[in-house]
Amino acid sequence: MSQQVKQNILAELEQLPLIDPHTHINPHSAASTTLADIMGYHYYTELAHSAGLPKSQIEEEGLAPKEKVGRLVEKLDDLDNTVQLSWLIEIAQEFFGFQDDKITLANWESLYDTALSKMNEDNWEQQVLKQSKLEQVYLTNDFDDPLAGFDTNLYVPCLRTDDLVFHYTKSATRDRLAKATGVDAGDAGSLKDAIGKLFSHFTKNNARACAISLPPMFSPQQVSAAAVDPILKKVISGSELSCDEANQLSCFIFWSLAEFCAEFKLPFDLMIGVNRRVYEDGVFQGQDLYDSRTSLFQYKELFNAFPTVTFPVSVLAQTSNQELVSYSWIFPNVVTNGHWWYSNIPAHIEQDTRARLQAVPQSKQIGYYSDMYKLEFALPKFAMYRRVLSKVLANDFVIDRGWSEERAINLGKTVLRGNVERIFGGL
Amino acid sequence: MSQQVKQNILAELEQLPLIDPHTHINPHSAASTTLADIMGYHYYTELAHSAGLPKSQIEEEGLAPKEKVGRLVEKLDDLDNTVQLSWLIEIAQEFFGFQDDKITLANWESLYDTALSKMNEDNWEQQVLKQSKLEQVYLTNDFDDPLAGFDTNLYVPCLRTDDLVFHYTKSATRDRLAKATGVDAGDAGSLKDAIGKLFSHFTKNNARACAISLPPMFSPQQVSAAAVDPILKKVISGSELSCDEANQLSCFIFWSLAEFCAEFKLPFDLMIGVNRRVYEDGVFQGQDLYDSRTSLFQYKELFNAFPTVTFPVSVLAQTSNQELVSYSWIFPNVVTNGHWWYSNIPAHIEQDTRARLQAVPQSKQIGYYSDMYKLEFALPKFAMYRRVLSKVLANDFVIDRGWSEERAINLGKTVLRGNVERIFGGL
Amino acid sequence: MSQQVKQNILAELEQLPLIDPHTHINPHSAASTTLADIMGYHYYTELAHSAGLPKSQIEEEGLAPKEKVGRLVEKLDDLDNTVQLSWLIEIAQEFFGFQDDKITLANWESLYDTALSKMNEDNWEQQVLKQSKLEQVYLTNDFDDPLAGFDTNLYVPCLRTDDLVFHYTKSATRDRLAKATGVDAGDAGSLKDAIGKLFSHFTKNNARACAISLPPMFSPQQVSAAAVDPILKKVISGSELSCDEANQLSCFIFWSLAEFCAEFKLPFDLMIGVNRRVYEDGVFQGQDLYDSRTSLFQYKELFNAFPTVTFPVSVLAQTSNQELVSYSWIFPNVVTNGHWWYSNIPAHIEQDTRARLQAVPQSKQIGYYSDMYKLEFALPKFAMYRRVLSKVLANDFVIDRGWSEERAINLGKTVLRGNVERIFGGL
Repeated sequence: MSQQVKQNILAELEQLPLIDPHTHINPHSAASTTLADIMGYHYYTELAHSAGLPKSQIEEEGLAPKEKVGRLVEKLDDLDNTVQLSWLIEIAQEFFGFQDDKITLANWESLYDTALSKMNEDNWEQQVLKQSKLEQVYLTNDFDDPLAGFDTNLYVPCLRTDDLVFHYTKSATRDRLAKATGVDAGDAGSLKDAIGKLFSHFTKNNARACAISLPPMFSPQQVSAAAVDPILKKVISGSELSCDEANQLSCFIFWSLAEFCAEFKLPFDLMIGVNRRVYEDGVFQGQDLYDSRTSLFQYKELFNAFPTVTFPVSVLAQTSNQELVSYSWIFPNVVTNGHWWYSNIPAHIEQDTRARLQAVPQSKQIGYYSDMYKLEFALPKFAMYRRVLSKVLANDFVIDRGWSEERAINLGKTVLRGNVERIFGGL
Repeated sequence: MSQQVKQNILAELEQLPLIDPHTHINPHSAASTTLADIMGYHYYTELAHSAGLPKSQIEEEGLAPKEKVGRLVEKLDDLDNTVQLSWLIEIAQEFFGFQDDKITLANWESLYDTALSKMNEDNWEQQVLKQSKLEQVYLTNDFDDPLAGFDTNLYVPCLRTDDLVFHYTKSATRDRLAKATGVDAGDAGSLKDAIGKLFSHFTKNNARACAISLPPMFSPQQVSAAAVDPILKKVISGSELSCDEANQLSCFIFWSLAEFCAEFKLPFDLMIGVNRRVYEDGVFQGQDLYDSRTSLFQYKELFNAFPTVTFPVSVLAQTSNQELVSYSWIFPNVVTNGHWWYSNIPAHIEQDTRARLQAVPQSKQIGYYSDMYKLEFALPKFAMYRRVLSKVLANDFVIDRGWSEERAINLGKTVLRGNVERIFGGL
Repeated sequence: MSQQVKQNILAELEQLPLIDPHTHINPHSAASTTLADIMGYHYYTELAHSAGLPKSQIEEEGLAPKEKVGRLVEKLDDLDNTVQLSWLIEIAQEFFGFQDDKITLANWESLYDTALSKMNEDNWEQQVLKQSKLEQVYLTNDFDDPLAGFDTNLYVPCLRTDDLVFHYTKSATRDRLAKATGVDAGDAGSLKDAIGKLFSHFTKNNARACAISLPPMFSPQQVSAAAVDPILKKVISGSELSCDEANQLSCFIFWSLAEFCAEFKLPFDLMIGVNRRVYEDGVFQGQDLYDSRTSLFQYKELFNAFPTVTFPVSVLAQTSNQELVSYSWIFPNVVTNGHWWYSNIPAHIEQDTRARLQAVPQSKQIGYYSDMYKLEFALPKFAMYRRVLSKVLANDFVIDRGWSEERAINLGKTVLRGNVERIFGGL
């Protein structure tokens, strides 16, 4: 019975057009041009490398796309069990008519050629959007992105701020900020002015969120302009900062971002818990890990200080999910957001989803985002999420709590789509 | 088959009369007088506030009960998915004959009036006890509670000690202690005398436990009278304590409580992991959260020092459950206790219950307590727990381990009721 | 349907001969001689003690084996629910034809006598190996074990190094090292020489791994010979080390072990997270617990420094499993290893297994080891693991992902047996 109820719910949720509220899509080149764009996704390169394929084989300079795919295919059997590989197979089956269960040395070239021919069709990007039922795709834009040359109602800008908060000591970052804003930010006041100009530029171009990823140990605090001015002087003079000074500077910039989120009424996406470059010799984008010893308690001051800013929070470690549930249940301005990166596998999504649906107001849950770099991935990733969501709705609500299927489907629609529109400002 | 086995087990467990070993019932006003008593439970006010209802609307001075309920009802749809709201619906259906699935703007007034009329019946409290199969209800009493005017065999006193341990620096606490005991506690010796008098008073009045809730970072240590005497002097002189001094004082009082638990043979309920007032502008009782970075390793010295004291331990974070299982499996004096607050939802109860039933001696598990403030909540909360317990017994014991249903039911009875009697001294 | 698929998979996995890659078997006395050898396993003594049996009753000097079993039997009813007791029942049923569900005061003597008579048969050890389908059993050898007098192809040596890393300050450890190697290790250089001789001795005798258990707070760092020389001088002179010095010495020896693992091409088993002697009055081997606040981030420097060393990692706390999954998915030299001690119960194995099978390359997962002290325990422990593995393969792969049973069975065989051979060097 459980399976049948799940299928009924799933069938309804599959009809729903989607807004994908967090991706890394390049709006100027949203869809893939060869299978190498798809199999070059860091999940495949890092897993193949983890299974023994040397980095030099994967990242060889001048490597032709087809040759790259051929090399990765040799390791796919080792990854056969992973859910990430199932995304690839689903892409191949759904978009390219692939009939087999596995991509092998015997069939990959034919798949490569079929994919190439589909991707060369004029309207490939539109085909993918349509088949994936994607109505809007949110982006991750550098703070100095001109946001020009694309339809910002389809590809919705979001202001990504990691560089500002954690790499402001690099002159390249400061140069980019100066160039983007025309402001020479030499002290706290002018730095805030510059940041304000970014918000103005982004919101004029339909931006729907400010976003940042944060290391496990970060704990935002308010820092006064008076305290940060001498630190900024040191930065500009090229002196090295102490750890404490660097942290104060990060806090000051972070806090300023929150202030502008309040002023410009933008949600502030917090993606909490990543340590960068833990595996220093890893492949591109396959070097980051985490320390699960982190707590939302570190954000107490922030959540109290900005009651009008909505904070959609993603946590990297599944062990942080209960805190996220509890903080969202108590703080009006904290909402749950998707299943991020290392937590984005069914085993973790299922636990997260059960706890959230049981204890967080339904209006405060953003069910899922794809985090994709290429448009083809929304389809298998949202499909994975919908299957887990349907299973939880069937077991916990229809069977255990006696809900009608219709009522469960409506709850599913709210977290899958309705809340995205409501929380970020919608279509 | 799994569903049928679960139903068979559940049907048997539903027959069992209950002792509720931890509540916040006021024995002088145990049952509700209007629906506002029920919907004023912090779960509804904090969730409604989290979903957007302003605190000022909820806590307006002089707000009439019916008006308060009406305001909360406007937000119930946002909470429709939460298990907490399912308790409310179950109360309405079981006690007041409510026929609908949801409390809405269209039906709440009629429910309010029905409830009012039932609650006005002379024997409402007795009706609730009987329908809920409640034989005993343990209380949470302030240390200066006179414990007079109620049947302590029905409403069993427990000595709650948070104020003593964490607020002894407040003169109000010291005044209350002096008044309750007749001892002017100016140094370590007299402070201990005063505490001893509390234990004497409580045990004379049928108290069954000493209890305290503890912040995540607390780590009890033995502190000598010589070390604490100068700190007490500073307290009495009105000087501010350093963090370290305040912690030493807390440790001294806490350790003294454990010593008296040994002397008076009282279990010491430890409720580990709460940070108070994290959301400072939250509604009443809706301000506390936690930092899941805590460990029972902090209690190593305590558990070793008091082998004759039974410590029923509750943990706030589900991530602490495995430690609780392991410490209960090793330490004779540590037993598992219920599913506390943010862990009290089926998704977490199920995980906790599975691990406990698989690895802790069955005689060392207190399955559940309601933590209720009003008598009507035992029914839906224990019902929720029994459903999860029955599911785990069916799947993990009858199906996976080949147990008979009868054997599984007996295990269920032991954790649901038998151990409560045995560990706390029973009826 | 789920149950049937699980049974089909299980039936196939039960046919597979096993290599047990981590045990504490004494190769000179591998099988039990009385039921007291089996019921003296720390799981039963510590659980019986936890349930109230005094340590003095269990560890009384000169206690006869039958009397010891009789005393433990009195507490078995309290442990009836535990999965550890189910291992005992399964041993009794599978090896000794025991027909009941429980070992009681009425039937234990007959069981004791039957077991005794079986164990007295000449080829009892061979019977157990055969019935358990055990082809190889890896050992845990003291660093000064002569490794003589047994078949190292059946009982495969592993170099256990806790004493060297954490007890080198004890003169007994240094004496044992001197005696085993003929090297008087007075400085960093000679200490390394001595350790090198151990590796030489062990690998000449077919050793397949170096292994160590580590406390939660340990964080390996490279320490120079120059830094450690004065510390070694203090050690030899009998001076007490500071915490920092002791840690530097531990790090130096640990790092040297990793260097020799690279040179001798031995995997380095890391068993992370145990605190020793937490319950000081516990029974033998029933005193250790943990602090779940630990992170693989502490091993960042190690994993980066030794890319050619394979690190099979076991974690004590289930809350560490997601980190283990993520680090194994990223680092080529990190592989998942079994379900250790407090995590070795179905509730935790199931969660661990789901996440690992969904996100770690299948070639990088060592499914299980028994950790047993007596040969009879491989049968029920591997049986428990196979049941959970079959359940996960049925639900997550056959049902949720549409795999054929055959494909799921092959995945099961890879993690249950194939990887053990491949990673440790095999038969």
